[in-house]
Amino acid sequence: MKLTILFGGASFEHEISIVSAITVKAKLSAIDLSFIFCDQDHSFYLIEPSKMKAKTFSKGEYKKMPKLSIGHGAFIQKSLLSTIEHKCTILNLIHGADGEDGTLAALLDFFSIKYIGPRVDACIFSYDKRYTKWLCEAKDIKSLKYEVVKSNEHKDIALSYPVIIKPARLGSSIGVSIVKDESELDYALDTAFEFDTTVIVEPFMQGVKEYNLAGFMANGKMYFSIVEEPQKEEFLNFEKKYMDFSRSEKVSKADLTDKLVSKLKANFEKAYKGMFEGALIRCDFFVIEGEVYLNEINPIPGSMANYLFEDFEASIELLANSLPHAKRAKVSYDYIHLISKAKGK
Amino acid sequence: MKLTILFGGASFEHEISIVSAITVKAKLSAIDLSFIFCDQDHSFYLIEPSKMKAKTFSKGEYKKMPKLSIGHGAFIQKSLLSTIEHKCTILNLIHGADGEDGTLAALLDFFSIKYIGPRVDACIFSYDKRYTKWLCEAKDIKSLKYEVVKSNEHKDIALSYPVIIKPARLGSSIGVSIVKDESELDYALDTAFEFDTTVIVEPFMQGVKEYNLAGFMANGKMYFSIVEEPQKEEFLNFEKKYMDFSRSEKVSKADLTDKLVSKLKANFEKAYKGMFEGALIRCDFFVIEGEVYLNEINPIPGSMANYLFEDFEASIELLANSLPHAKRAKVSYDYIHLISKAKGK
Repeated sequence: MKLTILFGGASFEHEISIVSAITVKAKLSAIDLSFIFCDQDHSFYLIEPSKMKAKTFSKGEYKKMPKLSIGHGAFIQKSLLSTIEHKCTILNLIHGADGEDGTLAALLDFFSIKYIGPRVDACIFSYDKRYTKWLCEAKDIKSLKYEVVKSNEHKDIALSYPVIIKPARLGSSIGVSIVKDESELDYALDTAFEFDTTVIVEPFMQGVKEYNLAGFMANGKMYFSIVEEPQKEEFLNFEKKYMDFSRSEKVSKADLTDKLVSKLKANFEKAYKGMFEGALIRCDFFVIEGEVYLNEINPIPGSMANYLFEDFEASIELLANSLPHAKRAKVSYDYIHLISKAKGK
Repeated sequence: MKLTILFGGASFEHEISIVSAITVKAKLSAIDLSFIFCDQDHSFYLIEPSKMKAKTFSKGEYKKMPKLSIGHGAFIQKSLLSTIEHKCTILNLIHGADGEDGTLAALLDFFSIKYIGPRVDACIFSYDKRYTKWLCEAKDIKSLKYEVVKSNEHKDIALSYPVIIKPARLGSSIGVSIVKDESELDYALDTAFEFDTTVIVEPFMQGVKEYNLAGFMANGKMYFSIVEEPQKEEFLNFEKKYMDFSRSEKVSKADLTDKLVSKLKANFEKAYKGMFEGALIRCDFFVIEGEVYLNEINPIPGSMANYLFEDFEASIELLANSLPHAKRAKVSYDYIHLISKAKGK
């Protein structure tokens, strides 16, 4: 099987995407992989597999590699003498903006390029934490209560402290703070507002149980990873998460009752179905007094959560062979013909 | 002022978009307009203004006109001898798929081309009627109760008859039926399923008052059109709506109390703010026992609802000069540098 990993993007998580791509490369050694890098100016480059090293990007060496443009059904490499079409299923591995906000999904759909990754609507409901709350509400999935604060308004917090402050549209713990009392609030809000004009405030629960579960649908059937209880300090800061994105060592299953595992899977499926088809996602849950709460949906998890799957390579192949196609409406000119006729033209 | 009208699209409303573009052309005579057509294969063509006639498209004559590709900051016209960059603010006038589903918005954002029209998230919440319901719920806007039926499930309707059946993701009354009793249900569902796998069922209320209001935000201030009470039979069928998209004659204000007009505007603003910035939209409301219910959001209304504005041309200029810019994250390689250093490389 062939697969092209698309990574980079004009995002605060640009570096993380590079690390993710390098990690996934090592985990998909039986697949014939190629690599397309999207730089911060939204130019695409074809990266030689042997050059898939962090410094290729941090030192700007990628700029010497072939530039690509996006065209119908393929990425296109033009030189003076030839035009090469790179036709291949894409694995969208751009975390954060571009990859998870629906931009790349729309681009790939428009140009009829098949891809593993969330479609546009799935992106909207997972990228913006406010809309994840709306999704939970509509699909009857429990999630923590929350408030929204915008950078252009002064607002007191009604929730009791401690609270956790998150930019609405960023992953990887960037701009996230725990606020123990009111005196810390303004600083935490200012930090979050550096990254987004909208901020989510939620109760912070010390010692709450947290579980991660990844999965996908293929041929109408759900496939799940093992459930992991992530190690954590107060919460993972950016450095920790960064390292997290390069994870490749298998983790051990969390020690949970079958009943709780079923509950986690049922909630995952509720969130996934009718929206995330085509993507391998990771849902992060809280468990409070036996009840499951959805914390976050990662529609493109770090290094594709490879470490949670028994057979990661087989999972990716299964998914790649069961991708939804964008149905394109057939255009007709019936009414124009009708009117022209009525006018006698 | 210069403006490029983008129209067409691979959509069931393709023809409607052509009619819309021809109508808007006539209404914006003081603006220096150019025209880009997106055909059903997602190829772009630069259309000579004098050729903006229905038959240019229905007879395929557009194919002889210059083909464009999309590039950074511009649509690009390449010939053997030259490359011309068409840099201009776009007016997105593609109704239905492509234009209203977030695809074009993402494309224009990705390539940093300014446009009048809904951004990606605004598209998701107006294109799919289910998500409009979620928006109403979250923003505390009243809307009719509803049920969702999917094509792959058998489901009895709990709502009492008569009901109205709508494909979740189509405008212009395509695939819509009124169902008076259970015997008519299956046929109506099948009709709707021709256009979408998801269908919305709502109570159908004979003789309910319906009002349309258009508007936009510019420089932080809301601008509203007059309120119209649309003429209707049972409901507008596709032919009627089609003619509706070429409307250019001013309509007279609905005879409403100031209080009701304020209520309609307040509901419009609630739906608009924080989501539809950059777009001129039309909201269609029901008024039942003095209460305002949001029926539908048209993020790219037919012929831009020109007939509802006192000074349509000035409105478009105002909006064009107050468009949101997509903020692009600055990429850094701090962590990669840090790690390389730690590794001594």
